[in-house]
Amino acid sequence: MEVTVSRKAHFNAAHRLFNKNWSDEKNESVFGKCNNSNYHGHNYEMIVSVTGKINPETGYVIDMGVLKKFIKDEIEERLDHKNLNLDIEYFADIIPSAENICIYIHTLLRNKISSELDISVTLYETPRNFVKYPSN
Amino acid sequence: MEVTVSRKAHFNAAHRLFNKNWSDEKNESVFGKCNNSNYHGHNYEMIVSVTGKINPETGYVIDMGVLKKFIKDEIEERLDHKNLNLDIEYFADIIPSAENICIYIHTLLRNKISSELDISVTLYETPRNFVKYPSN
Amino acid sequence: MEVTVSRKAHFNAAHRLFNKNWSDEKNESVFGKCNNSNYHGHNYEMIVSVTGKINPETGYVIDMGVLKKFIKDEIEERLDHKNLNLDIEYFADIIPSAENICIYIHTLLRNKISSELDISVTLYETPRNFVKYPSN
Amino acid sequence: MEVTVSRKAHFNAAHRLFNKNWSDEKNESVFGKCNNSNYHGHNYEMIVSVTGKINPETGYVIDMGVLKKFIKDEIEERLDHKNLNLDIEYFADIIPSAENICIYIHTLLRNKISSELDISVTLYETPRNFVKYPSN
Amino acid sequence: MEVTVSRKAHFNAAHRLFNKNWSDEKNESVFGKCNNSNYHGHNYEMIVSVTGKINPETGYVIDMGVLKKFIKDEIEERLDHKNLNLDIEYFADIIPSAENICIYIHTLLRNKISSELDISVTLYETPRNFVKYPSN
Amino acid sequence: MEVTVSRKAHFNAAHRLFNKNWSDEKNESVFGKCNNSNYHGHNYEMIVSVTGKINPETGYVIDMGVLKKFIKDEIEERLDHKNLNLDIEYFADIIPSAENICIYIHTLLRNKISSELDISVTLYETPRNFVKYPSN
Repeated sequence: MEVTVSRKAHFNAAHRLFNKNWSDEKNESVFGKCNNSNYHGHNYEMIVSVTGKINPETGYVIDMGVLKKFIKDEIEERLDHKNLNLDIEYFADIIPSAENICIYIHTLLRNKISSELDISVTLYETPRNFVKYPSN
Repeated sequence: MEVTVSRKAHFNAAHRLFNKNWSDEKNESVFGKCNNSNYHGHNYEMIVSVTGKINPETGYVIDMGVLKKFIKDEIEERLDHKNLNLDIEYFADIIPSAENICIYIHTLLRNKISSELDISVTLYETPRNFVKYPSN
Repeated sequence: MEVTVSRKAHFNAAHRLFNKNWSDEKNESVFGKCNNSNYHGHNYEMIVSVTGKINPETGYVIDMGVLKKFIKDEIEERLDHKNLNLDIEYFADIIPSAENICIYIHTLLRNKISSELDISVTLYETPRNFVKYPSN
Repeated sequence: MEVTVSRKAHFNAAHRLFNKNWSDEKNESVFGKCNNSNYHGHNYEMIVSVTGKINPETGYVIDMGVLKKFIKDEIEERLDHKNLNLDIEYFADIIPSAENICIYIHTLLRNKISSELDISVTLYETPRNFVKYPSN
Repeated sequence: MEVTVSRKAHFNAAHRLFNKNWSDEKNESVFGKCNNSNYHGHNYEMIVSVTGKINPETGYVIDMGVLKKFIKDEIEERLDHKNLNLDIEYFADIIPSAENICIYIHTLLRNKISSELDISVTLYETPRNFVKYPSN
Repeated sequence: MEVTVSRKAHFNAAHRLFNKNWSDEKNESVFGKCNNSNYHGHNYEMIVSVTGKINPETGYVIDMGVLKKFIKDEIEERLDHKNLNLDIEYFADIIPSAENICIYIHTLLRNKISSELDISVTLYETPRNFVKYPSN
């Protein structure tokens, strides 16, 4: 009798898509305006979902206040108002696409949340484009 | 060839989180401001999802008008503008957390909808916190 | 050359509509299910709008961080997870309708924000019902 | 290590629900106001989700620009500002319910997107009614 | 001390934009795909706003239940699941653009609501296009 | 008999708030994390509102297709996927706060739209912070 509980959060960041092993021409051809060398940015909205059994003493799968604090400490403090390419070491060698940012967030939270609980992360790069890891 | 059809609905209710087997101090420590003995409240928004085969004569998995009426009669009439702790007998011994409310709604609808159809319920306690049963 | 800047915030509260000078029958007749003596509740979403000239040194009408802190200290800390009828003295003699809550919020913020700036408050009682003071 | 990427899009169309093998009375009884012989209409909002592995050279499951163009060419150009019953041959013999429109969109996109990628389509007929194929 | 109270509602309808005094070519040139002779449609979302003084006995500018019923009886019953060009006599000689529909709704409600109260109507033809009468 | 018509649009950009006449310390003190020298970014959503009389021949205040094209050509092409500080000359000497970006957009559109029509611009820097020019 498992329930999934979800919490929305957000951070604002700059990024740029480019592959440092490619020529400028190939980067321009593949990434188009996302390749702007001066960066552009997004309001990233994320949904963190946690699945597990309800604790009968609290009625909770996980205390939302605790989950909110994990998200604040691990994700928002780290990524909010940052340049993902320049300020976040993880993206020194990994392209900060929505897909890769989503996996990064999942990894950071996986380290903090009990392994008895499954987690998934949905990341909105814009209100029209979003990604989810693990996949549906 | 199954399709999931979903209907949004809502109700407004007061509640309070506390475990009657615990001391006031422990309730305060675990539930914080959600433990206010004078209650607080929410606009609960729910999504009821029904999965099954399309009836080729109607193009419907389930008539949305029928589903809308089930939700109105079984959920909205029962929970809207109520105090979940005081007015709903089910919560006499069960903490009205979002998780437990979601399971309660699922149980009420499960009794009304053909067993050939799978159902799930997503319940938003706020626009930022929501739960789903059964889990993803 | 005036600009209006707006900030969204929210609080969750219980309330009940009734006029203590009226009979139970008249309260029931006028306020219907909003009159439930056990209370019901809402996720109140508010938009605080501040109008004034841009400070050319900052590009700001008002520092959003300052406005966010005023809203947190004056409104959220006071009203979030409260019973408006029982916990807020202002509503001892004033019915906590959306209209009156909106005016109360406006009064609290008016005391904190420079009189050179105009302010207005929009309060959503539900996603479908909302009020604004001063009027459009 | 699969990720689901999703893109929102929309089209506006008229339709009417009726089964041509039924009497007017039966159509009226089953479909009610959706059976209006002069048609009614909707702003259909859709979410196209694509699941697959991340290409390490781009960080993409699929180039969102390519997906956006498939949706524009295959779905929006075909369905936007159309009468689904009269203008779309597929619905000559199939009732244009949300369920059937969703399967039609899935079929059109399935032909364009690599078979290594799974796809699903969520279609909002209104902000309150929506369907998903394949089912959850 | 006036407050504006607003209520959201919605209806789904088909329409077509064309001027019967013009040639097909001119209609096609001016209205483009909105001129499809088989009609297209929208989920119209509307916000009805009413401005006036608060009644100190109720805390209301207007009883939202009464306003909701006016909107249901005067607007939704009349326009929902209709073809605006064919089913609504008002649009026999007036083009059912969002602007004109908005004025029509305003006129219908103006007849029902006390002249001591000001009213305005905002009409969303799509989530991206909307109109307001009277103007801001 | 004037109507206001509005169109939503969006662009994604990077920016940084700082006053080049100030020391690093003062910039840090006033602008906080918005002062990150590596930039951060936003999904800017804007609403362009145009007020005027309805043309009785078209039912339009302004052709939404024309307004959409003005917004695309003048605003989206210029600002989307750009660094506002580095790529937009206007912000060489003006701080790209939401207030100043809003006035810039207003100025660009004012040059394109007939002076018989009033225009206003609402700019969302995040879903929680937004500005409007001219003021309410």
